[in-house]
Amino acid sequence: MHQIALIGVGRIGAIHAASIAAHPRLALACVADAVPAAAQALAARHATEAVDVDTALAMPGIAGIVIASPTATHVDLMLAAARNGQAIFCEKPVDLDLARAWSAAETLDRMGARALIGFNRRFDPHIASLRDRLREGAIGAVEAVHIVSHDPATPPIDYVATSGGLFRDMVIHDFDMARWLIDAPITGVFAHAACLVDPAIAAAGDVDTARTILTTADGRMCTISSSRRSGYGYDQRIEVFGSGGLLRVDNVAQTMVEHWSAKGRRYAPIQHFFLDRYAEAYRREIAHFADMLDGAAPAVDHHDGVAALALAEAAQRSIASGRMEPV
Amino acid sequence: MHQIALIGVGRIGAIHAASIAAHPRLALACVADAVPAAAQALAARHATEAVDVDTALAMPGIAGIVIASPTATHVDLMLAAARNGQAIFCEKPVDLDLARAWSAAETLDRMGARALIGFNRRFDPHIASLRDRLREGAIGAVEAVHIVSHDPATPPIDYVATSGGLFRDMVIHDFDMARWLIDAPITGVFAHAACLVDPAIAAAGDVDTARTILTTADGRMCTISSSRRSGYGYDQRIEVFGSGGLLRVDNVAQTMVEHWSAKGRRYAPIQHFFLDRYAEAYRREIAHFADMLDGAAPAVDHHDGVAALALAEAAQRSIASGRMEPV
Amino acid sequence: MHQIALIGVGRIGAIHAASIAAHPRLALACVADAVPAAAQALAARHATEAVDVDTALAMPGIAGIVIASPTATHVDLMLAAARNGQAIFCEKPVDLDLARAWSAAETLDRMGARALIGFNRRFDPHIASLRDRLREGAIGAVEAVHIVSHDPATPPIDYVATSGGLFRDMVIHDFDMARWLIDAPITGVFAHAACLVDPAIAAAGDVDTARTILTTADGRMCTISSSRRSGYGYDQRIEVFGSGGLLRVDNVAQTMVEHWSAKGRRYAPIQHFFLDRYAEAYRREIAHFADMLDGAAPAVDHHDGVAALALAEAAQRSIASGRMEPV
Amino acid sequence: MHQIALIGVGRIGAIHAASIAAHPRLALACVADAVPAAAQALAARHATEAVDVDTALAMPGIAGIVIASPTATHVDLMLAAARNGQAIFCEKPVDLDLARAWSAAETLDRMGARALIGFNRRFDPHIASLRDRLREGAIGAVEAVHIVSHDPATPPIDYVATSGGLFRDMVIHDFDMARWLIDAPITGVFAHAACLVDPAIAAAGDVDTARTILTTADGRMCTISSSRRSGYGYDQRIEVFGSGGLLRVDNVAQTMVEHWSAKGRRYAPIQHFFLDRYAEAYRREIAHFADMLDGAAPAVDHHDGVAALALAEAAQRSIASGRMEPV
Repeated sequence: MHQIALIGVGRIGAIHAASIAAHPRLALACVADAVPAAAQALAARHATEAVDVDTALAMPGIAGIVIASPTATHVDLMLAAARNGQAIFCEKPVDLDLARAWSAAETLDRMGARALIGFNRRFDPHIASLRDRLREGAIGAVEAVHIVSHDPATPPIDYVATSGGLFRDMVIHDFDMARWLIDAPITGVFAHAACLVDPAIAAAGDVDTARTILTTADGRMCTISSSRRSGYGYDQRIEVFGSGGLLRVDNVAQTMVEHWSAKGRRYAPIQHFFLDRYAEAYRREIAHFADMLDGAAPAVDHHDGVAALALAEAAQRSIASGRMEPV
Repeated sequence: MHQIALIGVGRIGAIHAASIAAHPRLALACVADAVPAAAQALAARHATEAVDVDTALAMPGIAGIVIASPTATHVDLMLAAARNGQAIFCEKPVDLDLARAWSAAETLDRMGARALIGFNRRFDPHIASLRDRLREGAIGAVEAVHIVSHDPATPPIDYVATSGGLFRDMVIHDFDMARWLIDAPITGVFAHAACLVDPAIAAAGDVDTARTILTTADGRMCTISSSRRSGYGYDQRIEVFGSGGLLRVDNVAQTMVEHWSAKGRRYAPIQHFFLDRYAEAYRREIAHFADMLDGAAPAVDHHDGVAALALAEAAQRSIASGRMEPV
Repeated sequence: MHQIALIGVGRIGAIHAASIAAHPRLALACVADAVPAAAQALAARHATEAVDVDTALAMPGIAGIVIASPTATHVDLMLAAARNGQAIFCEKPVDLDLARAWSAAETLDRMGARALIGFNRRFDPHIASLRDRLREGAIGAVEAVHIVSHDPATPPIDYVATSGGLFRDMVIHDFDMARWLIDAPITGVFAHAACLVDPAIAAAGDVDTARTILTTADGRMCTISSSRRSGYGYDQRIEVFGSGGLLRVDNVAQTMVEHWSAKGRRYAPIQHFFLDRYAEAYRREIAHFADMLDGAAPAVDHHDGVAALALAEAAQRSIASGRMEPV
Repeated sequence: MHQIALIGVGRIGAIHAASIAAHPRLALACVADAVPAAAQALAARHATEAVDVDTALAMPGIAGIVIASPTATHVDLMLAAARNGQAIFCEKPVDLDLARAWSAAETLDRMGARALIGFNRRFDPHIASLRDRLREGAIGAVEAVHIVSHDPATPPIDYVATSGGLFRDMVIHDFDMARWLIDAPITGVFAHAACLVDPAIAAAGDVDTARTILTTADGRMCTISSSRRSGYGYDQRIEVFGSGGLLRVDNVAQTMVEHWSAKGRRYAPIQHFFLDRYAEAYRREIAHFADMLDGAAPAVDHHDGVAALALAEAAQRSIASGRMEPV
């Protein structure tokens, strides 16, 4: 059993705690959070220890650290874990500042650290199956990718204000998807964005709706459709256009119930949000972290985290310049 | 151009008139109906002549007769056309009385007549494509068939009273489908029926809902789901279960429009009734009749008409006996 | 925490063990099996005790017994648990002999026992959602039900020989579904069956393919389509036809991946078998058992078990008689 | 009966000829083409007269002119018809040169001409139904549109060379759709394009794959996905994202046949190309032209033709500049 320390017990931290507790090769040695009462509550649920962050980092016998604390703490915690020689699983983004993220990645490399970054969609069985078929050549050469990622409803304005903005907070997942599916360096980014959903988001200095075009050196292209509010659930679709056809992942329905009437055929709504849609992905992500503790290389690491952040920053520049920005 | 006389200008007669008029190798020479004004109206629409039935039968130069008049007239009109040496296209059923239909079929044979019976579904491109794939061996040996045929809404009670009953009037199409898809003699029929939709149908001596099981000598089976009222359109589905998988034809939607909201994803209603659902089948049926006039053998003839009627009669016997009836 | 003893550690027993171990209000106190090594292996996986059956029944502090042992042991184990005053969760069928099952149900009633019978589909979120909508009146009065339940591939012949036959072993689930969805007593059963898939099944005295029609006193009807081999996965579909429309549950796909090519659009296969398709149902079944331990009445009990068995027996009689049999 | 002259008897001209001939209020008075034999062949099929273009324009009693000749002839023919006081139906694009198209439109206005431009998709029953629902407020305010329009296979290189390029020839339909669905002026265009499919297209000076972003003054947006080759049929999809949900039109399948096997569920390919997919749209377009002859205003006119061309030109500028171009 590999002993794991979990830092950060918010919504996503609680999910990871449950996955760690349920995994046959992992044990949740302790949980830590800036809010001690929150740590205690989660610790009680999994019959483990609540400690402060420094104690967690100093605890002997810990093989891996799972970092689900606020973004601003990611870099320091990763470096501390690396100094301990521990395997790292850190939520995205690595940092909101590209230069700082870059520098941290270099340091992690020098220290020989292994860090898994929480791009959960790579572990989704639907998307992973699509990519497997892609790599098997089901549609020949990839020419273009189209990604839809629309949240069901706007987040609290407090969240928006500290999120780093739509591109660093939300589209960053799609930038990672684009890199993973196109499998060639992204060389240009054009983004168009607006605040169409909630003026409070504009007041907080952010946008809520965007369309982004990415290109590779040889002209292949990816479009990303982003919205903070769909009104009909968590719209998560991917299409890959190849020389021999199309591979796509459609949304997952809440149930397979259909109601046919004179008004039409009503199918169940799509899954509501990431906790439903990616429940299995989160479990597989932790299972992959267990494999890392047994020697596997991380499937998606800090370099991927930095690369996705670089695309987010290029998108921001494009918004300002009105042109396609080099990466 | 083959000259065609059309007898019977009701709903289905009008459809055939349009198909004949539009066909490059057919000309609508005349239309006849027991109601002269109806014949005149349809004749005007297609710039042809309205005559009485005897005149139509005596008209020189007529290569083919299309019979869309009431069922009770079918046998006599077919025999008259046969005496003229004309090709016949007669709507289903051949007759409501099995013995009379059987005898007519024998007479037609003796006269060397070629008669196409209006089992329109055989000409539907969806169903025809399913059967082509079946014959190509896509699912190996056929083991079972399931047919759903539910009308959108109950017909007028007047219609019910003279229709010959649910099995002879409506399920007869499904009996023909079963024979065509299983491609082996049906040896037993069990039927269960009730009046669940409208008590007026029971008062008229008929049922509105039925489930029928057909079997072949080697135990292969077909189920038929029948209803005079679906409430959601013309439910027309076929499934064929084989040793290597399933072939099915799903309903056709009115449009491909989808509306996604918090309540679910609403798809357009299915096509409303046979005029929409089988519009193309009716065109192809007439095109096949044109091919018959150029020498082709009828794809579905009076023997098929009699065989389907025999199954309808066996179903009626089964209702009375509560057991599977031999055919 | 309610202490649970599990008897029977085969495929389904192992699933229940995992659900009990993961449930926050249940503890797996011991597991027992006629094969001690099997019990020990499962006990080790869940850090619990492996005992023999008598020890399990005599163990103090056990609140509930989960019976997943061979069918022939069900009645005696239920009665033993009832004598202990324990809540019972017993896999289907109650027994292969209707008279014995009936007598056991009466005894359980006299003893005031609460017994949940493992008709897992009632706990499937898709099917449960369909029934909720039905009870809310989404389609008005229920007129007819159609159930498809086809296994992916034939079971081992050893299993067939001791299973009690297609109707008692497999269709029994559908008989329970029919009762639950029609919500009125079934008064007649007609069944047609054959051995179309594997002659070895006929040699073992069983059939592999069947179609069954059930009726209520007022003529409402249910058809059940049964096969031991689909060739394309675990075909589990339900349709309910009402006065105001249709409710249906379609199959669940393995993934949402689609591959579009010149040959068509290929969607992922449907889920392979019951372990995948009903994984969530099994979890919810155990959660309902936990609710029973906190006082809830069983959602489906030994009377339901007997009623489904009575329908299976009527189906067998119908096969012999060729007629609809009263229940 | 309104007498119609058809000029241009290529693929699309032949379709219009058939629609005119079949329409109850239109008569095909003559057909003209630069290739007399082609005109004669089509005239023979519809029992009408083949003439040269000047004769067609001078023929008395002609109420409407249908122009399906090469793009370079469109402006002159429209002006000639306008001088005759005839109603005009002209295929897209108005011209390849924006200034010339603009000037022609102004002249047509001064002459009081009524001109229908052949943006056939506006007449497609699926797309028209989507727009009706949009205007009824089904999804509230429109925020974004996504259009996929991929041809099945590359056209002949000769065609590419004279087509005016991907944007003027093909994407122009999507520019019109965007304008029609967003229902607000497009103020900016960004386009990214490449030759990914066939190097011969690059050699001919064109691209074969593009992604375009359109914006309105208030930041609403439309993305267009364009390809000269899908490999799986004519991919024609539209999605409109609104404040209250999503409306979409999915592809139309060739048939409703499904084949389920261990490899998955294969659905029929989507319709192959525009002749299938938009057959009904072409009929409705001519029916609308008949309505114009009875006094209706054109549903889409030369100003729409010029506006779509202006977007194509802006897209070309954007390709060159790498930035969003004002319109």
